[in-house]
Amino acid sequence: MDLLRPGSHRAEGLIDDHALVAAMLQVEVAWFDALVSVGVASREQAEIVADAAKQWQPDVAQLVVDAEATGNPVVALVKGLRAAVTDSSAAALVHRGLTSQDVLDTALVLLSRAAFVRIEDDLRGTATDLANLVRAHRNTVMAGRTLTQYAVPITFGLKAAQWLSGLLDALELVRLSAARLPVQCGGAAGTLALAGELTDEPLALVRAFADTLDLRDPGTPWHTTRTPITGIGHALVSTCDALGVIASDTVQLGRPEVGELSEGVVDGRGGSSTMPQKRNPVLGVLVRNAALQAPQLGAQLHLAAAQAVDERPDGAWHSEWNALRTLIELTVIAASQARELVSGLDIHTDVMTQRATAVADSLLAERGTGDDNPATYLGSSAEFADRILDRFERGATT
Amino acid sequence: MDLLRPGSHRAEGLIDDHALVAAMLQVEVAWFDALVSVGVASREQAEIVADAAKQWQPDVAQLVVDAEATGNPVVALVKGLRAAVTDSSAAALVHRGLTSQDVLDTALVLLSRAAFVRIEDDLRGTATDLANLVRAHRNTVMAGRTLTQYAVPITFGLKAAQWLSGLLDALELVRLSAARLPVQCGGAAGTLALAGELTDEPLALVRAFADTLDLRDPGTPWHTTRTPITGIGHALVSTCDALGVIASDTVQLGRPEVGELSEGVVDGRGGSSTMPQKRNPVLGVLVRNAALQAPQLGAQLHLAAAQAVDERPDGAWHSEWNALRTLIELTVIAASQARELVSGLDIHTDVMTQRATAVADSLLAERGTGDDNPATYLGSSAEFADRILDRFERGATT
Amino acid sequence: MDLLRPGSHRAEGLIDDHALVAAMLQVEVAWFDALVSVGVASREQAEIVADAAKQWQPDVAQLVVDAEATGNPVVALVKGLRAAVTDSSAAALVHRGLTSQDVLDTALVLLSRAAFVRIEDDLRGTATDLANLVRAHRNTVMAGRTLTQYAVPITFGLKAAQWLSGLLDALELVRLSAARLPVQCGGAAGTLALAGELTDEPLALVRAFADTLDLRDPGTPWHTTRTPITGIGHALVSTCDALGVIASDTVQLGRPEVGELSEGVVDGRGGSSTMPQKRNPVLGVLVRNAALQAPQLGAQLHLAAAQAVDERPDGAWHSEWNALRTLIELTVIAASQARELVSGLDIHTDVMTQRATAVADSLLAERGTGDDNPATYLGSSAEFADRILDRFERGATT
Amino acid sequence: MDLLRPGSHRAEGLIDDHALVAAMLQVEVAWFDALVSVGVASREQAEIVADAAKQWQPDVAQLVVDAEATGNPVVALVKGLRAAVTDSSAAALVHRGLTSQDVLDTALVLLSRAAFVRIEDDLRGTATDLANLVRAHRNTVMAGRTLTQYAVPITFGLKAAQWLSGLLDALELVRLSAARLPVQCGGAAGTLALAGELTDEPLALVRAFADTLDLRDPGTPWHTTRTPITGIGHALVSTCDALGVIASDTVQLGRPEVGELSEGVVDGRGGSSTMPQKRNPVLGVLVRNAALQAPQLGAQLHLAAAQAVDERPDGAWHSEWNALRTLIELTVIAASQARELVSGLDIHTDVMTQRATAVADSLLAERGTGDDNPATYLGSSAEFADRILDRFERGATT
Repeated sequence: MDLLRPGSHRAEGLIDDHALVAAMLQVEVAWFDALVSVGVASREQAEIVADAAKQWQPDVAQLVVDAEATGNPVVALVKGLRAAVTDSSAAALVHRGLTSQDVLDTALVLLSRAAFVRIEDDLRGTATDLANLVRAHRNTVMAGRTLTQYAVPITFGLKAAQWLSGLLDALELVRLSAARLPVQCGGAAGTLALAGELTDEPLALVRAFADTLDLRDPGTPWHTTRTPITGIGHALVSTCDALGVIASDTVQLGRPEVGELSEGVVDGRGGSSTMPQKRNPVLGVLVRNAALQAPQLGAQLHLAAAQAVDERPDGAWHSEWNALRTLIELTVIAASQARELVSGLDIHTDVMTQRATAVADSLLAERGTGDDNPATYLGSSAEFADRILDRFERGATT
Repeated sequence: MDLLRPGSHRAEGLIDDHALVAAMLQVEVAWFDALVSVGVASREQAEIVADAAKQWQPDVAQLVVDAEATGNPVVALVKGLRAAVTDSSAAALVHRGLTSQDVLDTALVLLSRAAFVRIEDDLRGTATDLANLVRAHRNTVMAGRTLTQYAVPITFGLKAAQWLSGLLDALELVRLSAARLPVQCGGAAGTLALAGELTDEPLALVRAFADTLDLRDPGTPWHTTRTPITGIGHALVSTCDALGVIASDTVQLGRPEVGELSEGVVDGRGGSSTMPQKRNPVLGVLVRNAALQAPQLGAQLHLAAAQAVDERPDGAWHSEWNALRTLIELTVIAASQARELVSGLDIHTDVMTQRATAVADSLLAERGTGDDNPATYLGSSAEFADRILDRFERGATT
Repeated sequence: MDLLRPGSHRAEGLIDDHALVAAMLQVEVAWFDALVSVGVASREQAEIVADAAKQWQPDVAQLVVDAEATGNPVVALVKGLRAAVTDSSAAALVHRGLTSQDVLDTALVLLSRAAFVRIEDDLRGTATDLANLVRAHRNTVMAGRTLTQYAVPITFGLKAAQWLSGLLDALELVRLSAARLPVQCGGAAGTLALAGELTDEPLALVRAFADTLDLRDPGTPWHTTRTPITGIGHALVSTCDALGVIASDTVQLGRPEVGELSEGVVDGRGGSSTMPQKRNPVLGVLVRNAALQAPQLGAQLHLAAAQAVDERPDGAWHSEWNALRTLIELTVIAASQARELVSGLDIHTDVMTQRATAVADSLLAERGTGDDNPATYLGSSAEFADRILDRFERGATT
Repeated sequence: MDLLRPGSHRAEGLIDDHALVAAMLQVEVAWFDALVSVGVASREQAEIVADAAKQWQPDVAQLVVDAEATGNPVVALVKGLRAAVTDSSAAALVHRGLTSQDVLDTALVLLSRAAFVRIEDDLRGTATDLANLVRAHRNTVMAGRTLTQYAVPITFGLKAAQWLSGLLDALELVRLSAARLPVQCGGAAGTLALAGELTDEPLALVRAFADTLDLRDPGTPWHTTRTPITGIGHALVSTCDALGVIASDTVQLGRPEVGELSEGVVDGRGGSSTMPQKRNPVLGVLVRNAALQAPQLGAQLHLAAAQAVDERPDGAWHSEWNALRTLIELTVIAASQARELVSGLDIHTDVMTQRATAVADSLLAERGTGDDNPATYLGSSAEFADRILDRFERGATT
């Protein structure tokens, strides 16, 4: 929730500090369960720890203060959790074998997963609505425009299909990234040395840890090989790219001089603090706003990845956190707003048709036949729309 | 306060949503006072409004939700404030003549000013400490290094002076930007048309508004001419640049193999969740982390500036907010952390000297005289340090 | 000259490899002259070196190859220049006391200066044309637009004045940066140690060096304090911001559905490879293209600045070069294109007026008086335009 | 070849203007061949066109100048090619049915493919060398470091394996992107309308076009759905990330105070313009330099993608070109340099071992057993190294 990120209530509870604390505690509990699975801890101890994690209500403001001393919030969290565990032998085993980065990386992966679920759901909903637009507007002729000027005729169905195409690309990247989300588990410097003191089977321990969280066991730690994070970033930025195109196009086509589209009328939306007549395309503007920010946030993740020296770097890892969290939040918000935008879109087919007819001279100049009906010069518009629809339909069943 | 921004308690209350709400209310009250000054509203009405603004405790979470409908938080805030004003004629005049952007831009300028005060104070404190290091270490010989390898000898005093030089550059930019912070005041589309309905002297109204807030009257609105914002950004990013160099150098020189500097020992700081011996250079790492993020945030402001179409753009303006706020917060935190870092720095002059002596062959190879005392090949180190000290001292008196 | 940078012939010879080689040679010759001024070299030797620098035609392709071995082009250049100097005692003094970074930084500063001259000239020309538009269109009423929708009426004169305002901000930054361009001169690690072996007055040597090149003597080296470079970057990016707003607005207002502006008709310009009717707003599109790229290039310079460790960093300095050169070139091109764009702009005042009249209901809704003449609700449009004109006129005389 | 991009001779001829012209001509010839395949043109005409394309030596400098008029180099190229085709009926069919974006996008895809071939080859070579290092150093104990300070012991084999892991991730992305490279083919506005005038089977024409170029037929145009371009970008930036980690680590471990690694000695490499003793880690520095630039270039591609309005946008598409080309070139150079860096690496195992032994207290503090042999606390280092080796070996056979 953030006053300067309108729509942030759409991501409420998903990625904020409380969600992060919950995710970090979930990681610690899962690790304890994994310790049970290899015989290091007992089932009873695990229950005590799980209960403590459930009951404990950390003072997040204090955690923020304490986080500075160690450079991350995990040390203070572990200390607090241990204090909340009544059994001292269980308390001593909490976090044993892990390092801060294991906990924070895995927690951020869990938050990414929760965000991906929401994003995928919204993208699928939007895709369904776009597919309906494609079907409904196969024959709705409109002016094509390049470099702002009239080009040749297209159909609105084809335009919606191109939006859908971008969305399906994004959906593919989201699914791919979501399916490969790994736990981070390497201990102090990526060797699992301390875990190896606890058990002869540290690798089985990692597997159990991953299974408990329903995440992938990556086989090796990725402390300094940040491909999972940059991959999440690429999926998120690409999602914003696809949504940004839809938003940019609708905002453009909704200019009063163009008038071919408009955002659905929702009571109270789009108003101004001073002009009573205003109906601003707020959703389109906000989605565009997200799309303008996402690339720089994705770049931040790569920049951190490229400088991951030693077994944990001297600032680069830390510089991922804010960018990743902001990028996740912006994408969740934008995906939700874009879904509402698309589902509520008013298509002014009459304006499209009238304009296409009125400027037929321009739209048909390339053809050079003197013909004056834009509907006769649509090329493969319908086939292209069908191909994208087909891709959507095949994907929808899987 | 943010778990993923360690040290964010250092900026507590300065830039968060409550601070923003307070700043927006301050803007509305100042505007009302300005209306009084040109005879549009009465002193009594102004008191009623000021009281209401003071008493009213807006539900910020609800404001967040409401902000989406209009794309910014101002409309809902104005509605709430008007409702809190018991006198209906006064309520009707609240915000009258302004537009959302006037309020939000000016509020962000106020937050920037508060941040600049803190940043400037920390930079001055750091500069004072650096100046002391320069004076103390005029003759402390150490190895100069270029592209990671030994170059020629320098003094630690010169190194500290170069840090100081960067800091003074930043301080100059901060002061310049802080001194020119303008109100935004243009009404719906930058013409003050509605204000002109209220008074024959709308320009006097703007001047009074600026005076009340102790901000500059820029003469004309800057709705779509975002130089004030990119200028704030440049000052902040440049500050992070200067701090980043200090942090990068101290982290580097504090590597155990180098051991020429170390962060001051503070109980509980620098610990690890698993390794008891650890004393991580946390402040240096966190400042570096900020410096790695600032450039992308500054770029976001320019990107928005470059696309400020129409009389208010379709997303670009919105894309400034998050970047500006994050950049302000990171810089405030980093300036405070860097001050503590510098003031607590342990300088291991013995290590510096011993190393310089031990590798004198390398350090003096350029000279080619077979001499083996690095202290004899310091060139203008002392004069350069003095010149920077001199610049500091002249600046300190103004 | 670059096929993927349309308009790059406008920057021909200004910033390419040959210009860079020439600038580096100019630096070496100036340094030699400075050596003469403090009595280290003779006037005759200086003439021999200057002649050699003038006659020598370095094999640039070979320099590129050789540049890798040392990580920068200076070492090979110096070697080549020394070989071209027939007098061996003079040859031995070439570059003596300097380091590669001194030469490359100063050469890039020289190229920046040449670029600034061109940019300033174009900005002044554009400002003059904009001022004429402001004067001519003080009373040309048009629709104001916010978030793409009709807001309140403005004049085209005010819009042009706002463009001018951004341009004057940019011009101020360009002049400020251009006036402070410094030489870089510190020797191997910023101590002038080797220069100090040659003369008792190394600081006088630096001053003479600066004077010869007509650059500022910064007092101290700035090897690792990159404010001069980030300052150049800020001036260039801010220039692109201002030009980007003009281009974005003209492209937008030139959409056929809007039709209030169009790029001047130039034979052969704006054509398509397939559509004979096309007249694309090529200059606007290309300027926008530059404005979309500049922020990331400016960020690169800050990123390098923030990581300038040691006495010369391990990659950060190198990462400035490409960004700075590209940013310079894009800005030179864009400033030239924007000047042509503005000078050739067709203003369709009839369309502006007719539309403002046609949508008067919307434009006057804020006023709420039922009035239907947009020209009566222009607020302070004229005064604002005058203030900006006044700023231009005052600046023009200085 | 670029003086400010040391190592650019490694990418000579791959991506420069001549390579681009050749690729654009290849596209036009392939299109003509496709026209033959559907019976629109004759085999003889195709030979005439192919001959003309082979013989014609376009004046690239003039093309640069001409490119501005239309905003891209294709129109002038087509004009020149048609003029070079002696048969007027064949000349008239050149480019017929295509649009500029089809040619330029496809040409850039061809250049990307050529770059990917080189990059993949270098990554494979580097991977092979890294695998050898992993095998050779399974038992070479060294200090692990986190946040610059000693953590727990690792092996150099594990470190090399982590480098390899990042490289294999990059290789996977490169292969994935390379395998999916599509032609662009949509005509003026993505409908193939003009192609549909020439033949009843425009979609077969596209397929033939793709087959001729051995590129993927994407099924639909992607004028405004830029996922292929952002995907290329992600693969390239991720490659630079992986190489950047290797370079950063080697530069760091090669600091004289650390001395655990050094770049291979190559005559004349690493020298300074003034210090005779210098042996700078030039390859590491240059690769790091590329890794610091790549993220911003990748962001540029996303930024363009997010704003691809209409059927061809008003600047965003143009803003891809420079970023994509620079990113390709930097990655080709860095991949080649990194290969040489890794193959020539001197591993100072004695220094590693001695240090690990000397600081065993620190490295074993976590264990808390009072043991003093770092080799006994390596955890799963060997298993992790084996798993990465195994991944490499499986990949090598496919």
